Formats: sequence, structure tokens, C-alpha cells
Amino acid sequence: MGAILETQTSGGAAGHAAREGVVRVAVVGATGYAGGELLAILLRHPRARIVRLMAVIPEPSPMEQAHPALRGKGLPVCELPCVEDLTSDKADLVFLATPHKPAHDAVPGLLARGLRVVDLSAAFRLRDAQAYPRWYDFEHVAADALAEAVYGSPELNAEEIRRARLIANPGCYATSAILALAPLLKAGWVDVKAGIVCDSKSGSTGAGRTPSEKLQFVEVNENCRAYGLFTHRHVPEILQTLELEERNFTFTPHLLPVNRGILSTVYVRLAEGRSVEEVRALFAEFYASAPLVRVYEVGVLPEIQAIAHTNYADLGFAVHAATRRLIVVSALDNLAKGAAGQAVQNMNLMYGFPEAMALA
Amino acid sequence: MGAILETQTSGGAAGHAAREGVVRVAVVGATGYAGGELLAILLRHPRARIVRLMAVIPEPSPMEQAHPALRGKGLPVCELPCVEDLTSDKADLVFLATPHKPAHDAVPGLLARGLRVVDLSAAFRLRDAQAYPRWYDFEHVAADALAEAVYGSPELNAEEIRRARLIANPGCYATSAILALAPLLKAGWVDVKAGIVCDSKSGSTGAGRTPSEKLQFVEVNENCRAYGLFTHRHVPEILQTLELEERNFTFTPHLLPVNRGILSTVYVRLAEGRSVEEVRALFAEFYASAPLVRVYEVGVLPEIQAIAHTNYADLGFAVHAATRRLIVVSALDNLAKGAAGQAVQNMNLMYGFPEAMALA
Amino acid sequence: MGAILETQTSGGAAGHAAREGVVRVAVVGATGYAGGELLAILLRHPRARIVRLMAVIPEPSPMEQAHPALRGKGLPVCELPCVEDLTSDKADLVFLATPHKPAHDAVPGLLARGLRVVDLSAAFRLRDAQAYPRWYDFEHVAADALAEAVYGSPELNAEEIRRARLIANPGCYATSAILALAPLLKAGWVDVKAGIVCDSKSGSTGAGRTPSEKLQFVEVNENCRAYGLFTHRHVPEILQTLELEERNFTFTPHLLPVNRGILSTVYVRLAEGRSVEEVRALFAEFYASAPLVRVYEVGVLPEIQAIAHTNYADLGFAVHAATRRLIVVSALDNLAKGAAGQAVQNMNLMYGFPEAMALA
Amino acid sequence: MGAILETQTSGGAAGHAAREGVVRVAVVGATGYAGGELLAILLRHPRARIVRLMAVIPEPSPMEQAHPALRGKGLPVCELPCVEDLTSDKADLVFLATPHKPAHDAVPGLLARGLRVVDLSAAFRLRDAQAYPRWYDFEHVAADALAEAVYGSPELNAEEIRRARLIANPGCYATSAILALAPLLKAGWVDVKAGIVCDSKSGSTGAGRTPSEKLQFVEVNENCRAYGLFTHRHVPEILQTLELEERNFTFTPHLLPVNRGILSTVYVRLAEGRSVEEVRALFAEFYASAPLVRVYEVGVLPEIQAIAHTNYADLGFAVHAATRRLIVVSALDNLAKGAAGQAVQNMNLMYGFPEAMALA
Repeated sequence: MGAILETQTSGGAAGHAAREGVVRVAVVGATGYAGGELLAILLRHPRARIVRLMAVIPEPSPMEQAHPALRGKGLPVCELPCVEDLTSDKADLVFLATPHKPAHDAVPGLLARGLRVVDLSAAFRLRDAQAYPRWYDFEHVAADALAEAVYGSPELNAEEIRRARLIANPGCYATSAILALAPLLKAGWVDVKAGIVCDSKSGSTGAGRTPSEKLQFVEVNENCRAYGLFTHRHVPEILQTLELEERNFTFTPHLLPVNRGILSTVYVRLAEGRSVEEVRALFAEFYASAPLVRVYEVGVLPEIQAIAHTNYADLGFAVHAATRRLIVVSALDNLAKGAAGQAVQNMNLMYGFPEAMALA
Repeated sequence: MGAILETQTSGGAAGHAAREGVVRVAVVGATGYAGGELLAILLRHPRARIVRLMAVIPEPSPMEQAHPALRGKGLPVCELPCVEDLTSDKADLVFLATPHKPAHDAVPGLLARGLRVVDLSAAFRLRDAQAYPRWYDFEHVAADALAEAVYGSPELNAEEIRRARLIANPGCYATSAILALAPLLKAGWVDVKAGIVCDSKSGSTGAGRTPSEKLQFVEVNENCRAYGLFTHRHVPEILQTLELEERNFTFTPHLLPVNRGILSTVYVRLAEGRSVEEVRALFAEFYASAPLVRVYEVGVLPEIQAIAHTNYADLGFAVHAATRRLIVVSALDNLAKGAAGQAVQNMNLMYGFPEAMALA
Repeated sequence: MGAILETQTSGGAAGHAAREGVVRVAVVGATGYAGGELLAILLRHPRARIVRLMAVIPEPSPMEQAHPALRGKGLPVCELPCVEDLTSDKADLVFLATPHKPAHDAVPGLLARGLRVVDLSAAFRLRDAQAYPRWYDFEHVAADALAEAVYGSPELNAEEIRRARLIANPGCYATSAILALAPLLKAGWVDVKAGIVCDSKSGSTGAGRTPSEKLQFVEVNENCRAYGLFTHRHVPEILQTLELEERNFTFTPHLLPVNRGILSTVYVRLAEGRSVEEVRALFAEFYASAPLVRVYEVGVLPEIQAIAHTNYADLGFAVHAATRRLIVVSALDNLAKGAAGQAVQNMNLMYGFPEAMALA
Repeated sequence: MGAILETQTSGGAAGHAAREGVVRVAVVGATGYAGGELLAILLRHPRARIVRLMAVIPEPSPMEQAHPALRGKGLPVCELPCVEDLTSDKADLVFLATPHKPAHDAVPGLLARGLRVVDLSAAFRLRDAQAYPRWYDFEHVAADALAEAVYGSPELNAEEIRRARLIANPGCYATSAILALAPLLKAGWVDVKAGIVCDSKSGSTGAGRTPSEKLQFVEVNENCRAYGLFTHRHVPEILQTLELEERNFTFTPHLLPVNRGILSTVYVRLAEGRSVEEVRALFAEFYASAPLVRVYEVGVLPEIQAIAHTNYADLGFAVHAATRRLIVVSALDNLAKGAAGQAVQNMNLMYGFPEAMALA
């Protein structure tokens, strides 16, 4: 890995040498909400150096135009997208925070030019190329890249992530559901056939930054609405990761009048009687070495304010023992642990940095 | 009924005569949020006249002190509570918008003095007096009143309501759940043993007006949290009304950062395959004569903005036919159809007025 | 006026006769926020009947598509704009809730076809046609209509409004500033040369419904920003109405993260010492017969919640007597008293109805 | 200063040694909003170590009870207040984030025990002890401490701050006004007698965490109100710092429905004609070495989102040259640059750390 990291000796002309190696990162799609969060995290990351920024904008612009809070941070000017220009002599790692189609198109070339990629879009999340037309309405033709893509859920896949060239960074809702269910399903504690319901509520940054009437302030404020019933795009990656059948998993997202955060209320029938303490202990053990998952003591539940502007995923539990009903409450910041924070967590694993560097 | 209504001839000195009879109403608990909504509705009701207002306040005060929007409306001064002073020569109907304990204490006397009562508290909602210690932490000793109380759900109980002296006005969450499920359960379309999940999200007025740290602006804004898992007080009235067992009905309320409105997402396993059109038709028929329930066409779902500041309950549907999964989305304004609006709807039935008078 | 009102005898074929005459109204621009508010008010107006609805939409649609809360109200289908089709045999009064350019183009024809018009746009607010290129960036060529237009501020112009065929309905900020200053300026109590500052804060419906990035939920929520410094379009109508010079009046609008309401904090140097009681008395007398202006007692100030969803303008006062500094706090709902409510108030005056009919 | 800093050699038993010296800090009032922000900043400060936490709470509790986002951060348990227990062998610096009365009472003892203090309350901001009864309703009897207190505005007082034992950390509104006006007043560019108006809008954390009805979610949401007209407690510290007379400075705070941030719109009459570019240049020069003040280019204005969750104060400008009217728009986060961030900035100066360490 040393080869791809700048070191003091190689820093030289660019005048950016660090005593220890740094990763030179480029961000494509830097003007979106996930892009902005990524910049905020990378700016405080001691081992990352932001070398290129790109986005679909009318003309090259200082980054504070899209993200006023980043004024004065010394970021490179944001350029128009030109991924061909990203080569291994200029950058080590590319974060794609674009829609899935441009990500799909860009990844093979980036890999071919020796770069590693963390793709925050959905373009490489589903292993089955056939699934893309149904769920994402496009033909997936980057078969080689898809074959080597690693689903970037560090709590489940750390070893693969460390070796990966291409990370498919999980969806925000998907992360919320997966972390709430993985320990239970792996332990075989769930009566899967009874059906699992995941009722999720998300802040409005999750809907992206492209203007639309339904996302105007007046339409979201003092409102809450369900959408995508039985059809949301994060369903297949949840099913794939948890090895569930569609018939047994119902997912309903809702739009909340908050900027950031997802709260998922997950309803499960336990296969056999378990106390809430047992459930909590199962999760505590499962996530014992996960620095960005916080397992709550019995009697306290995660809420959005506990995780907004943090990179944690929080998990809490309630059990109605007599009827084997379990509710897991899962909370994370859709821009952080649900997107940019998890992307940097994946970068940390890929480059051997502490997993939570710049994140906790 | 004529006897309890003022008419032009009886109006006389008070100068309040209407050509047609009016109901003289008193509101106890007028400074709360439900109380304020009740006043707003009653002020535009052509057949109601507000004669007395009471609340637990430091001293008698003009009503705009609690409800600034009601400034200049000519309301009576709000007095300190003195329900003994409410007699049938001064008022016909009393709305109790108080906590359940004072309501429980006041009702027997009010009935004895010849008044009719619409109680917005929970004090008379549960038929079984034994249930109060468990769910509401007090001993119910008003057995006679409890025996004659009618649960005021006009879409289910109109005939009883018309004749009632005492209406137990339903809870806001309860109304939301009951209207979403009654047609399905009455038709036997639900696989009840598979379990029903009602995930509800409510605006903050639902938590009442008493200051507490958890309800401060900063704690609710940019937040969403679940509470009362498996233990919310509206559960028993839902079970009682829908004739469900506790084991088969899971209800989770959430606090939303909005002032008004409840959105309930209700998950049901159908007993046998039904299309979404069939489900919609069932609801449309069930609520054909209900002026304040709006059954949505397929493809559109209720949201909070559709019902905020209205007295409607709105219902929409999504079906995954192959797996017999049905989601009913139910929306109403917790202060209106969920409290004050339904209270006036009950009054309208009790006095033979058009059911939606002043409400639609 | 009888001629333009339907009466029982003339109602005939249409089957809509009222015992007393009704005004047949058309609304152009019915899908915007002011249009929706107008419909809500007109639906409860006992003397108005909505006969035609138009808006720039892809195809004719039921009104609940734009305004979900109006579902089930029996409104006509919203058509594509065809103002030529609005003639005096079909309608009496047209409300234009469109941008200023289409309003400017439509008015001459509407007047020629014998209709009366209340124009909620700015197209006829400035008496000087030369002002339009500077402030509104278009050439005003409807000179005759402009000459007869009456600025629809009922508290200042009631007599002219009663006789008008064309009402230029005031801007929302303008109404807020004018009502706060008119009594003081008419009485000569202001040291005008010391400069007047009007710092206004408005809800987001004031910015209209056309999607833009700056009005997305995420950009407005948890934010507040000033805009249009020294250049806002409502300045010239304020100057014209109050007979002020631009140099002496500074107006700064701000965007608030609320849906509705304007709060203006107006800073004035008094020409000579006055107590806050004297100031209050001046306002109370000035607005003694204005049913929709509420003058506050000393010690209480208007706030947005006092006027949101009402048609009132509220005014309160603080004075620092020793230094002749006066602050007037002015609050109104930008969609109601600041737009649709004032439009209906103007209609009420035009047709001899009680000024506050359907509004208080 | 070395003496009061831990070094590797002195770290010893406590196992907390850093290679370079760290400041051992205690926070009193750790459960409030400013206290929570202070903890968040100190946790990422490489030269600070949090050794004691205190607050008025029912019993010692883990810090995540008050600040859920700080769960898992390894903070000390929060104790009940016992400032006598804070001595120089345990701590170097005490942050007081309490109300002013307990701060007033605690400071003399802390200084006597050899500790340095940054007081976030108002207890030592006004040099004139006589001013406290009028503005803060208590008698100031800590004359010695008051005499040595330094007003902690780093952009104006850096040298004094470096040497200070006791910092009176400025008020949030005061900081906003002072930074907007100091360059202009020092340069003599303002026509002071024409009067300065500072219209400020603040997020709700500024009102503190004690529950009250006026600060409940429902009362603040969808609302905006002015308060404290001519009487706000931050006025005297602004006058003192800027050497203004009360008659020439009008300050009106408003409560915004956002959690964090202050936007001040400051209206000034220039003494003579200046272009906006000249004004900007004056500010740019004045703040050339201030790492936490961002002076905006002409044409862009600060807004709350630019500074929320940052430690910057942002300044932008508009000028109407012909009439010598200048508007300065000033934005900062009331919890950060307006409280905890500025407190840490003062600590950085006091201990010779880079001024913006952990802040930018």
C-alpha cells in the first residue's frame, strides 16, 4: 500500500508532504449534500489530502458557492467533471458522489488507470446485473467492475473492504436496516416467515439536492409522507445483504421535516422467547469491535438528535416477551454513517488507518 | 331536544338569540391546545354559543393570553375551574378538554345537573373500570357514568352518539388506527394472527402544553423519536373498539417536529389475495356516508399537509398482491379530527345538526 | 350592483341560485400558494361562488392535485389558462393570482368584457408606468387600466375600492409596512429625515411555488437569510402609498423557516416625545373601524403564531421615550391579509358585503 | 505557563500524559446547551483534557443523558456542583457555563485556588459593578475579580486575553453586534448620532435549556417573535465595548424556529460616502489576522447555514451610496463563536495554542 501513499520523501514539488503518508483523494459530485459532508470529514482527516473536486456546475467555482459553511477552508476550486483526467499520478482514491449512471460509466476507467474507488451511488451495490433494469432503470454493462465490487458495510465485510479496489458504499436506508437486523438474522433468532417490517423516517438531504416541487421547503415543512411503498430502491441491497426474500421484508420510507438523520423502527417476531437483555447482549457482542455502532442499554432508545452530525449508528431495543415481539430502533445520519462517513470508514479500512479516524 | 336549545323567544335579555336554536356550550380546559382548537371551531359554528370558559390558570384572563390567534373574537373571559357552577340553566353541553383525572371527577356531577358532556380526556373511553389502574394509573370510581358513556367514533357509533349524554371522545392515535382498520376487520379480510403493526407519527401538540424538557423546541426540532413502545395508553381503546387481542396489534408512536397532524402507516397481512382496487372499494363503501373521511384513489397517499388544519381523516392504500401485504396510510389532524373536530362532530350528532357543520 | 350579482330569479338553469345574490368568481393562477388560500377562503364565503379555475398546468386536473387539503370540496376542475373565455355572462369577478406579466396582459380584455378584477400580482400597483422597467423589468403598456386601478388597501382606500373595477392588491411586505406606518405618518409624528428602518421576516410561501434550489427544504430549514437589500420590489409601492422618499426608508426582507407569516420590526424616530400609550391610542383610533387590524395593548407584541392562518394584521408598540425611539411590530399572514384575505376583503367592499365576511 | 500544563513527565500515575503539555479543564454547567457544545469542541482539542464535569442534576449521571450525541466519548461522569473541590492540583482551567449568579459566587474562590477561569455567563462582563442591579437584578460583590476580568473578544483584546486569569466570555448577540460594528466605529466612518439599529434573529438554544411554556416546540415552531425591546441584557456590554451611548444604539432580538445561529442585520448611516468595496476593504484589513472571522466578497451575504455548527463569525455588506446607508449582515453560531467556540478561542490564547485550534 505504501506505493500509493505519498510520503515525506515523495511529497516534494507539490509542497504537500506529510511526515506520514497521505491519501490523495478526488471527489466527483462535490456539490451535492453527500459531497459536502465528505469534504467536511476529509478536511479534518489527518491522512487524507483533497486534490481534485468535480461537479456538474455551469463553470468552475469556489466550493463555498455550493457549501457556504466550507468558506475559507482552502479547498481546491470545483471543476467540471472530467474523470478521464483522474490518473494515479495525481490521486490515489476517487469518491464518486454522483448519480448512479455517471458512476457506472466512470468506474471501469478509473480502475484501469490504477485508482481505487469508493462509489457512493448505487451503481455497484447489486451483485446481479439483471437487477438494475428493474430497480434502477438502466442496463448494467460494467460486468468486470461489478464482479469485483465489495459492498462497503464495514461491520460485516471488513476483510474484503481492506483489499478492495472498488467499494459500493451502501445506501443510507439500507445501512439503517442492515445494522438493525444482521445480528438477529445471523443468530437465527428471527421468525422470518412472520415477516419483518422496517418503517423508516428520513431527513430531507436524503432526497438529494436537485430542485423539485415536492422538496420545496413549504411542501416538506409541517409535513410527513410515506413514499415508495413496496418499491424503494434500497430494498434489493437489504435483501441481498441479509439474505432475505422480498416477501418477508416490508420497507416503507417516510420524508421527515428535518435536514439530516434516519430513524428506523424495525418490527420482528422472535423465533423463540428472548428477553430484551438477551437481545441487547447479542447486539453488544456482535458489534463489540465496531467503533461506530453504539448499542444502547435497555430503557433508552436512539433518536435522531443522538446521531445527527455524527458518524455513529445507534441501536436500541424493546421486547414484548410473552408474544415474542421485538422492536429495534436504529438511528444514523443519512449523510454521515449513511453516506460520507461510511465512505471514509471504508477508506480508512482500505488504507490501514484506524477505522474511525476523523469519524469519532 | 328543543328543551335544551335556546330559541329566539328564550334569548331575550342576553341578546344572544338565534332564529334557530343554539347549543350553549362551556369548555373546561380552554387554555390547552385541544381547547384552543375547540374554540376556533365553535366560533364559526352557527348553532353553538360559547357561554363559559374555564382552565387552571393563575387568575381569570382574556382568552388571547393562551391563544393569541383568538384575539378580538369576543370570547368570554377564561375563569378558574368551577364545574359545580355549570348547571343546565346556564349551559347545555360541556366539553372537557382537561387531563383525565379532573374529567373523571367532574362528569358525574355534570350529568346529575342535567348537562350533556363530551369528554376529550381518556376518563371514560375504556369500558372496563379495571383497566384504568394499569393504563392510566388511577382508580375509576364513576361506575354509572362509565356505564353510560359512548365511545364517540361517529363513523362506527353514530346512533348511540345521537342518544348519548356522555361521549368519551376518542384518542387521536386511536382514531387514526381505528379508521384505518375497521373496514378491513369488519369484512374479515385480515389475517389477524399474522400481527398488525401500526407505526404512527404525531405532531407535538399531541403531547399537550405542559412544559417539559423533552418538549422544548430544541429537543423536538431536527429530531424524531419513538416512545411508549408496547405501552402507549391509546392501545386499549383501539383493542376494545376493533375487538383485537393485544398480542396481535403492535403500536408505536413517534414524535415529529411539526405542530399538528398524525400519519399512521398500518401494516396488515390480508387473509386472502385482494387487489388494491378491491381494498379501496371496501373502504369507499364503508365510509360512503361519512362526510369527514376521505378515501383516496389508488396511487395517491395521504400526507400530513393534506389534513392539517382540517377535520378530515384521510386514507390511502398500497398492496403487494402476491404476498398479501397491505399498507394503509391514515392521516388526520390530532387537534381536529383527532380531538376537537371529532368532539364537535359528536356534538353535531347529539343535537341533530348536519354531521360536518362547521367542520368541512 | 344588482346587475352583476346573481339572484334567485336569475339563477335559473345553472341551478345554483342563492336566496341572496352571489358573486360568480373565477381564479386564474389557482395552483399557487395564494391561489390555494383564496380558494379556501372563497369556499367558506356565503356570497361567492367559484365558477372557473385556471392555471399553467400540464393538463386539466382536479384541484386537490395542487392543494391536497382541498380534496372533496367540490371545486371545479382546474383548466389551462384561457382568460379570453372569461366573460360577464359566466363570471362577475376575476382574481388574478398569476405572475405580473400575464396579469398585465389579461386585465384590459377582462375589463373590456365587463368583468371586475382583483389582481394579486404587482402589475397595476405602481401608478407610474415608467417605474415598471426599473423594478419589474417589463414595459407597462396597459395605460388605461393602470389609470383606473385602485390600490387595494382597505384601511386607507375603502371608498375608492367600493367603486373600483380593477384592484391592485397590495404586496404582502408592503401591507405589513404600510399598516405599521400610515397612522404615524398621517399624524406627522415621525422624524422622517432620521430614516425609517423596516426589518421584515417572511415565511417561505411568500417566495412562491416555482421550484428553485434556494427554496428547497434543506436550504431554508435551520436557516435565515436577508435578501434584496435596498432593491426589493415592494419598496416602490410602500413609498408611493406612504409618500416617502427612497432615501428615508430602508427595507430588508429575510426568509424564515416557516410556511406562513410576516413579522416586521419597524424602527422610527418620533418627531417629538410621545409615550407608548399615546402611540397606541393613535393607532387604536386610526383603525377603530378596521375589522381586520388588531391594535395591541401596551406590553404585548404580535408574533407570527398570532396571525398565521388568520386574516388579521396585528400591531404592537415599544417606545424609548427619552430618546424618541419607537418600534412598531407588525404581523400578518402573507397568504391571508398579505394576499388572498386582503383580496377577498376588497371583493367584500366592491360588492357591499360586510368587510370581514368569511375573513374573521 | 509551563507550570500549569501537564507534561509527559508529570503525567505519571493518571496515565493521561501527552507528549506535549495539555490543559486540564473542568466544566461547570455541563448539561446546558453551551456546556454540551464546549464538550464537543474540547473532545477534539489535542491540547485539552476534560477532567471534571459538574451540573445541577438530581444525581451524578453519564454525560449522554444530557447530550445523547456524546454517548461513547469516554467523558467523566457528570457530578453535582462542588466548585470548592476544583483546585490547581486537579485542573488548570475552569469553564463556567452556568447562570450568572453561581458564576459570580464561584469565581473568587477559583482564582484564589490558582485556577484560571473562562466564564461564559454575564457575571464579569460589565466593568461597572453598579450596572448589575439594573441589567441583571443582582448585587455584584466580587470587586477584585471584576477588576481583573478581561472581556474575551479575541479580535479586539488578544493581548489582554493572553495574560488573563479571568475571561468574561462575551454574549452571543453581543459578539454578533460588536464584530459587525467595531471596524466601522474605530475608523470613525459612522454617523453615530443618526442612530444604529441592530436587528438580530437567534436560534432557540440561545434561550437556554430550562423548560418554559414560551420555549416549547409548539410555541417556537412556525413562529417568530421580538422580545426584550430596549431592555435586552446584552446591550450594556455592546455599549461598553463599542463606546456607544444607549441613545444611539437600538437592539432588538428575535426568536427564530431554528436550533442554532444568530443573524444580525445592522443598519448604519455612514459619516461620509463610501462604496461597498471600501467598506469591505476596511473589514478585510481589520480582521486580516483573525482566523475565525470571514469577511465576504461584495454580492454575497452570510446566512445562518453558513455558520451553524462552525466557530466562524461571517460578515457581509450592502451599501446605498447616494444616501450613505450601510447594512452589515453578521452571522455566527450562538453556541459556538457566540459561546463555547469563543471560550475555547480564549483558552487557546491563554495557553499559547494556535488561536483556532480545534475550531476551524
